[in-house]
Amino acid sequence: MKALVVSATPEPQSFVASMARTSCEVLERKGYEVATSNLYQMNWNPVASADDFGRRANPNYLTYALEQRNGVQTQTIAQDIQQELDKLMAADLLVLNFPIYWFSTPAILKGWIDRVLVSGTAYGGKRIYDKGGLTGKKALVGAALGGRPHMFAPDGIHGPVHDMLRHLLRGTLGYCGMGVPQPFFAWHVPYITPEARDEMMADYIAHLESVEDLPLMEFPHMADFSETMEPIRKQ
Amino acid sequence: MKALVVSATPEPQSFVASMARTSCEVLERKGYEVATSNLYQMNWNPVASADDFGRRANPNYLTYALEQRNGVQTQTIAQDIQQELDKLMAADLLVLNFPIYWFSTPAILKGWIDRVLVSGTAYGGKRIYDKGGLTGKKALVGAALGGRPHMFAPDGIHGPVHDMLRHLLRGTLGYCGMGVPQPFFAWHVPYITPEARDEMMADYIAHLESVEDLPLMEFPHMADFSETMEPIRKQ
Repeated sequence: MKALVVSATPEPQSFVASMARTSCEVLERKGYEVATSNLYQMNWNPVASADDFGRRANPNYLTYALEQRNGVQTQTIAQDIQQELDKLMAADLLVLNFPIYWFSTPAILKGWIDRVLVSGTAYGGKRIYDKGGLTGKKALVGAALGGRPHMFAPDGIHGPVHDMLRHLLRGTLGYCGMGVPQPFFAWHVPYITPEARDEMMADYIAHLESVEDLPLMEFPHMADFSETMEPIRKQ
Repeated sequence: MKALVVSATPEPQSFVASMARTSCEVLERKGYEVATSNLYQMNWNPVASADDFGRRANPNYLTYALEQRNGVQTQTIAQDIQQELDKLMAADLLVLNFPIYWFSTPAILKGWIDRVLVSGTAYGGKRIYDKGGLTGKKALVGAALGGRPHMFAPDGIHGPVHDMLRHLLRGTLGYCGMGVPQPFFAWHVPYITPEARDEMMADYIAHLESVEDLPLMEFPHMADFSETMEPIRKQ
């Protein structure tokens, strides 16, 4: 079994940096062969652009998704993307460790998603959700945030955290066909005691240790939708 | 009245690029003084990092939000951020024009949000939602996407587009206190005829022309939550 731990934190001493190291340690102990992408350390370029392609399918007009397909087929996609794509495709388990910025990933990680989850490989046409290009893999989110659980209660000020992260959990990871175990959230991290942090990390370790057995989030099944993606009404 | 049009597209001939030009034209015709931030053209740096700060509050450990506050107070925040912040603070209306990547903004625009919506100014502590730092302003999203409306019906394959974009509409723009008029979506853009595009652009112009009168999205009211952000149950 192989894992890829993608992490994004601008502070090497941060809780998220510890989470990423912990992800590697725990998964190695479990027998995984672990690859890492520490995006800040790699100085990862998050900006999807024409520079991502060598031989263009259409040199006069950039349709990013179509050039992604062409770039992979002709093996002319930018090398930094190809390297990450190879790591992703080899992995059975993807772990994302990041601090939540604006109820989403930091831009550097958004740019990993934009550039590496290439059309034609990760998804394409009707190959989404349970027919996605990354079926068979799992993707675990382990994120830290400033907020506290009660703020994300059903009647909390922000509503459920899964709803705020729907674009990522369902719209990105689930969309590509990956199984998405219940994510792990390290709450209120900037404001808690070292003891509370230790406890949070112990909880994360336990979460990760049982990653194969965690319940998966529910996403649409393509069999419930027609060729034109209209819902098929059951009799 | 002043407006700021922030746009993010890697293709200068794209529909989104036209939308951004149209935003400027329509708003100027309406009497707005319009500033622009064409993020690709500006080669905007989307990566939040320690480089964003001159004199650090804590040089040994980066808490990004705390350094944002300090950077603004001491006027030592990176110049590219300060410039965008000045444009934002001067604006009555913010317009965001972008192609939807992974049910969210392209990374370059996410990085504008991460870096420019600084803690202490755009929001802070309990100054969120209707007590946010940007109350009195409005933020209009005008975005293009590949999907079609029926895919975002309540029983559609992706569910409501507002739900997929909750992190942006509510969690970012609404969170800072901005009024968020119903967003405009240009559907299925890569796949439609030039005539259909013209029609879509006419719809966008009409949307923008009535921007002051568009119904605003509903977000939480801070008066309904306690000091510790517990919901106050009404008798």
